[in-house]
Amino acid sequence: MKNVLILGSTGSIGINALKVIEHLSDSFRVIGLTAYNNYRLLESQTRKFRPKYIATHEKNLGYLKKALSGIKVKTMDVERDLGLMASLPEVDIVVIAMPGSAALIPFLSAVRSGKIVAPANKEAIVIAGGLIMSEAGRNGAKIIPVDSEQSAIFQCLEGRNKTDLRKVHLTASGGALLNTSRKSFDKLTVKDILAHPRWKMGKKITVDSASLMNKGFEVIEAKWLFDLSVEDINVVIHPEAIVHSMIELTDGSIIAQMAVTDMRLPIQYALTYPKRLPTGLRPLDLAQWGKLSFLRPDFNKFPALSLAIDVAKKGGALPCVLNAANEVAVEAFLNGEIKFTKIVEVVEKIVLRHKPCKSVKLNDINLADQWAREETKKLIG
Amino acid sequence: MKNVLILGSTGSIGINALKVIEHLSDSFRVIGLTAYNNYRLLESQTRKFRPKYIATHEKNLGYLKKALSGIKVKTMDVERDLGLMASLPEVDIVVIAMPGSAALIPFLSAVRSGKIVAPANKEAIVIAGGLIMSEAGRNGAKIIPVDSEQSAIFQCLEGRNKTDLRKVHLTASGGALLNTSRKSFDKLTVKDILAHPRWKMGKKITVDSASLMNKGFEVIEAKWLFDLSVEDINVVIHPEAIVHSMIELTDGSIIAQMAVTDMRLPIQYALTYPKRLPTGLRPLDLAQWGKLSFLRPDFNKFPALSLAIDVAKKGGALPCVLNAANEVAVEAFLNGEIKFTKIVEVVEKIVLRHKPCKSVKLNDINLADQWAREETKKLIG
Repeated sequence: MKNVLILGSTGSIGINALKVIEHLSDSFRVIGLTAYNNYRLLESQTRKFRPKYIATHEKNLGYLKKALSGIKVKTMDVERDLGLMASLPEVDIVVIAMPGSAALIPFLSAVRSGKIVAPANKEAIVIAGGLIMSEAGRNGAKIIPVDSEQSAIFQCLEGRNKTDLRKVHLTASGGALLNTSRKSFDKLTVKDILAHPRWKMGKKITVDSASLMNKGFEVIEAKWLFDLSVEDINVVIHPEAIVHSMIELTDGSIIAQMAVTDMRLPIQYALTYPKRLPTGLRPLDLAQWGKLSFLRPDFNKFPALSLAIDVAKKGGALPCVLNAANEVAVEAFLNGEIKFTKIVEVVEKIVLRHKPCKSVKLNDINLADQWAREETKKLIG
Repeated sequence: MKNVLILGSTGSIGINALKVIEHLSDSFRVIGLTAYNNYRLLESQTRKFRPKYIATHEKNLGYLKKALSGIKVKTMDVERDLGLMASLPEVDIVVIAMPGSAALIPFLSAVRSGKIVAPANKEAIVIAGGLIMSEAGRNGAKIIPVDSEQSAIFQCLEGRNKTDLRKVHLTASGGALLNTSRKSFDKLTVKDILAHPRWKMGKKITVDSASLMNKGFEVIEAKWLFDLSVEDINVVIHPEAIVHSMIELTDGSIIAQMAVTDMRLPIQYALTYPKRLPTGLRPLDLAQWGKLSFLRPDFNKFPALSLAIDVAKKGGALPCVLNAANEVAVEAFLNGEIKFTKIVEVVEKIVLRHKPCKSVKLNDINLADQWAREETKKLIG
C-alpha cells in the first residue's frame, strides 16, 4: 500500500488522480489533499478519501475545520505548509497537480526527501529544472512525469539505453488556433481561446496551448527531465493528440507512445511504475481514427514557441523570467486587459530586458521571478 | 568482430545485409554466403567480401570453383550443406535471407548450435515455429527477427516486462490490391500483382502481400516469436508502411516503432542488438509525410487473411499445409496456370482436406509439406 499526496486535488489532474486511486484502492491510499480555492470540493474529497492531511487557503481553514469536525484530519495552510507536507515520512508519492510556480517549494521538498514525484505542473521544472534534477539525483528521488508528452517520452525510453537516444519528437495538438488565420488573431476573444480541441484543462494552460507557449515550456521541461540538448528536441504538430510523443534512436528508429486522450493513463502509470495495471479505459482504435496527421509548427504564427526555444537554449534564470512574465500576461488577457497577441509581445520585451545571471540558485530564481512579474505588470499597466 | 553467415545473399534482403556489413565493417565480417541460382552475383560478392564458405546449386559449383580459383574459399552444395554451414563454430550470426521452406533445416541447425539467428524468411517459422522456438530456448539461441513488422514488435518489447503485453497490432501496407475493387480481381495479371506500393521484394512474397496471405503468415510468425495467442494479434492496414507494428500494454498504452521503409534498419538492428549504431539512412520526417492512415482489413476481399488466422488458431501441422499449398499455388499463378483469385481457393481446399495430426515433429512437418504439395499440384493440374 502506497501513500499518495495530491497537491491540487480539485483541478482536473487532481480529480483524475483521485479516480485512479479509487480504481486502484488495493494498492494506493490518499494521505493528503490540497486545494487553494475550492474548499467545498476539498471538503467532499476529504469525506470520501479520508486523508490524514489537507491544506487550503488560510481564509477557508475556519470553515473546513468546523465542517470536518467529525473527521480525523489535520488541516494546514496551503501557502505555508506544502513543503512540510511533501516531506512527511508517511508520504510515498507526491502528485503535483497544482498549477503555477507555487509548486516549486513542495517539488523541491519532495525530491529532497527522496519521494516518488509525479509532476503534472510544468512551471516548477521550467523555472528550476536544473535545481530539481540535481536534488533528485542527490537524494534518490524518482521523477515520473504525468504530463502526457513527457510521460510518453518516459515510456518510450523505458528499458532503453540512454546513449541510444538521438532526438525527441514532442507532439503538439496545435491548440485552439491551429486552423485560425494569423490575420484574425487580433479579434480573438477569451472564449475562442478556451475552446481547446482535445484536452479539457485549466484556463491558464489552455491559453498557453493556443499560443504554443505551453509547448515551448515542454521543450524546456523535456530538456531537464531527459537531460537533452534543446537542439535535439523537435516539435511536431499532431492535431489528433493520439501520438503523445516519440523518441528517435541512433539508428533512425522511432519509438512512439500512443493512447486515448485520457489523463488517467499517464497518472496511473506514474503511480504504478515500473508496473502496469489495467486502467479500464477503452482501448485506442487506430482504424476508427482513420488518419493521424503531422505538420511542422508555424513559428511565424506562433512566436511564443520560438521565443521559448530560444530561452531554453540561453538557460540561466531566463526560463523563470519567461514563465513569470507569461503568467502575468495571460492573467491580464483572461481579465480582458490585453489582447491575445499582446501576451507574447509583452513576454518577449521582458525576456529581452532581463540581465542574464550565471548562478541559478533558488534565490536567483526568486529574484528573477519577482523582477519579471513587476516589470510585466508595469509594462501592461 | 562478429562472423556473419548470410543464407540467400543474392536476394533483396541478402544484398541489403551485405550493405549493412559493409557499413559496419569494423564490427562484422562475412563468413559465408549462399545463393541457389544467382551464381554470377555470388561470385562478385565472394570477390568483394571474401567469405570463408560459399554454397550454391550443384550445377553451378564447377563454374564457381574455376572462376574463384585464385581466392581461398570453400564451396559447398546449397541443397545439402546449409545445415552444416549454419552450425560451424566460426559462425556467430546467421541471417536467413533465403525464401521458402528450404530454410527450415539451416534455421534448426543454427538454433541448435546456439547462434544468433536473424530470420527474414517466414516460411520456416510458419511451418515449424513451435519446434524452432523450443530448440532455441533449449540451446540458448537468440532469434532477432529482420522482417520489418516482427522487428518492430521486438523493438517495442525491448526492455519491457512480457507480462505487461496485452496485444500486438501488426500493420500491413495492404499490398498492391488495397484500392482495387474485388470485382476486378478476376482480370488481374501477374504484372498488376507485382506492383507493390511500398517495398521492393521477391515475386513470391509480393503475390502473398497482394492476397494478404503474407500478413496471415506474419500472424502465425508473431504467435511463435512472441509467444502470443492468435486472439491477441490484431491486423491493421496502414498503407504508408511507416508504423512497422505496435504493442498494446496492459494499461492501454500503445508503443509503436516507426522508420523509413528501408530493410537495412531492421537488418542492422538484428546484427548490432542490443546496441544501436548509426545507419546513415535519412531520418523519418513525419511532417513531410503529413498523414498516416489506418483501416481495418477487408476479410471478404482478402479471404487468405482469415484463412491463415483460422489455421494459426488450429495449429498442428496445418500452418505447414497452408504454406506448402500456397507456395505451389502462387507458383502456378506466376506461371500463368491459374488466376490470382484461384490461389486462395486452391489453398483453402487443401487445408480443409488435411487430416489434423497432434504431433508436430520434423517428420510430421515434412510429411504434411509433401502431402500438401502433391495434393495442390493434383488439384491445379
